[in-house]
Amino acid sequence: MAVYTNLAEEEIADFIALYDIGELVAAKGIAEGVENSNYLIQTQPIAANHPTPYILTLFEKRVKEADLPFFIGLMEHLAARGLPVPSPLVDRQGRILQRLAERPALIVSFLTGLSRRRPQPQHCRELGESLAKLHLASAGFGLQRANALNQAAWQPLYQRCDPTEVSLLAKHLPQEIEPELARLAQAWPKPHELAWGVIHADLFPNNVFFTGEKLSGMIDFYFACEDFLAYDLAICLTSWCFEADGSFNLTKGGAMLKAYHAVRPLSAEEQHYLPLLACGCAMRFLLTRLYDWINTPKTALVVKLNPLEYLSYLRFHQNVRSLADYGFS
Amino acid sequence: MAVYTNLAEEEIADFIALYDIGELVAAKGIAEGVENSNYLIQTQPIAANHPTPYILTLFEKRVKEADLPFFIGLMEHLAARGLPVPSPLVDRQGRILQRLAERPALIVSFLTGLSRRRPQPQHCRELGESLAKLHLASAGFGLQRANALNQAAWQPLYQRCDPTEVSLLAKHLPQEIEPELARLAQAWPKPHELAWGVIHADLFPNNVFFTGEKLSGMIDFYFACEDFLAYDLAICLTSWCFEADGSFNLTKGGAMLKAYHAVRPLSAEEQHYLPLLACGCAMRFLLTRLYDWINTPKTALVVKLNPLEYLSYLRFHQNVRSLADYGFS
Repeated sequence: MAVYTNLAEEEIADFIALYDIGELVAAKGIAEGVENSNYLIQTQPIAANHPTPYILTLFEKRVKEADLPFFIGLMEHLAARGLPVPSPLVDRQGRILQRLAERPALIVSFLTGLSRRRPQPQHCRELGESLAKLHLASAGFGLQRANALNQAAWQPLYQRCDPTEVSLLAKHLPQEIEPELARLAQAWPKPHELAWGVIHADLFPNNVFFTGEKLSGMIDFYFACEDFLAYDLAICLTSWCFEADGSFNLTKGGAMLKAYHAVRPLSAEEQHYLPLLACGCAMRFLLTRLYDWINTPKTALVVKLNPLEYLSYLRFHQNVRSLADYGFS
Repeated sequence: MAVYTNLAEEEIADFIALYDIGELVAAKGIAEGVENSNYLIQTQPIAANHPTPYILTLFEKRVKEADLPFFIGLMEHLAARGLPVPSPLVDRQGRILQRLAERPALIVSFLTGLSRRRPQPQHCRELGESLAKLHLASAGFGLQRANALNQAAWQPLYQRCDPTEVSLLAKHLPQEIEPELARLAQAWPKPHELAWGVIHADLFPNNVFFTGEKLSGMIDFYFACEDFLAYDLAICLTSWCFEADGSFNLTKGGAMLKAYHAVRPLSAEEQHYLPLLACGCAMRFLLTRLYDWINTPKTALVVKLNPLEYLSYLRFHQNVRSLADYGFS
């Protein structure tokens, strides 16, 4: 969480003049997203009597420029189909993707609503429903992007973690990770076996807004890619339904799965594979956190997240025998 | 620049319910101020058809709780007299100062406008005029706060900087600082010699907003204290009128001084002492930057500012013979 690129406000004002959205009246660097620099800007359209907020995003090094057309196109595609996602703004010359401070940059619409650090069952139900709608709506989207953190990427990622450091974090960690990586490699479904399509891939609670109990926004599409649709659901189950004490909340899990299933019915194969996909998801976040834990310099402006949280989720998913263990009946 | 205290948005929503300002509809941690955590919040009053922004501030360790009544009272005093400063909000029970996440907290009004990283002469003129108005308006304010970084504090502050580290930054630094500290201690005016009162003490360009060319906001009163009024002007001259190449811009300096003088005429004594006060101001920022440069841990979430910038300003001020050298004629 940080503003990496510190823009002068007069620079932002000049940039806003490319668009037909009125004059810039305020700009604040906001702590949103870890990959990009974000500014909450407010403009005053000539006709309106109050300022309108937007988000100005500058893409920092971790986002590949070649991926930007996919992300932008996806947001446009979903916004056009009524999903509450950021809508990229088009400037007077028809451009969406710009350059500012030597970085790719764009402006998107501002979504009101509050994220929930501790989502309640009704929020999990809303999320399940909206995730299913997102999967249905993304079906006709024409661009492709492989999941850079898919199952095939986990073993190489683990090998880039210094074994001494891994054991230092927790002595038993290699004995838990290594056989599980082998099992996942062997048991992971082939793309044609389960519904495949565009997934958000990072729909954690901080990326979802609610107005009261209604879902009002889904943001941060910069991990979106193609993978099993049910894998996206596994990510949400894992990031939304565990309590602070590490226990899985069946009410929340059941609410999310039932709401998803009501909009986009899960096939028998998807239901069968969901616990395995959830193990994969726990492994993916365990490994990226592990890698960051070991390799992020101590001076970096980033809060390091504890990898072991995801080890406990992995253990839970390993013991799931059927979707009833997630509250789905 | 950072958000130090990471609040859950539901925590903020509960907090907002203490006030009669409508329901919280958005909250973003913003990168404003280095001493506090700030959130830009938006609420939706029942009667209004658009959200209203406010700033929620949590006071972190560097601000003393005992000083908060002074800061709050001063903002109220100035806002009531029509100055464009943040106005503290009163909750349903009549309270301004609250606690949130175990920290003192308050909400203030949001000021629109843009700060200028490179202020132009018209901005310097506006600033001079508003600073004089601030000094006149603060005259009737009843509370006291000593300047913790006044002239008497500089020698002890310098002594807390490791001499080896000081010489490492620039070999000649002790030979420049030490005699100047002695000169300032000897020549510094006594409180009764010059107009004395409440000053902002940190009115750098990032703390001032403009709508077009009109000054629309002055923020961050958390260094405000009592000192020579002309010392506040010396701080603005020093932080607004030097160019990136280190040269002093006479047009900007002249515009600021003339605009100030037109609202609150500078006495002959103030005009005489202004170059010395400016040397003191350059010394104060040189020393605090030097102290931070040497003593801030490398892991801190703070951008360290180069102390030597203020050494070059000090040298300029040392050579000023009259206010004509600042463009004031």
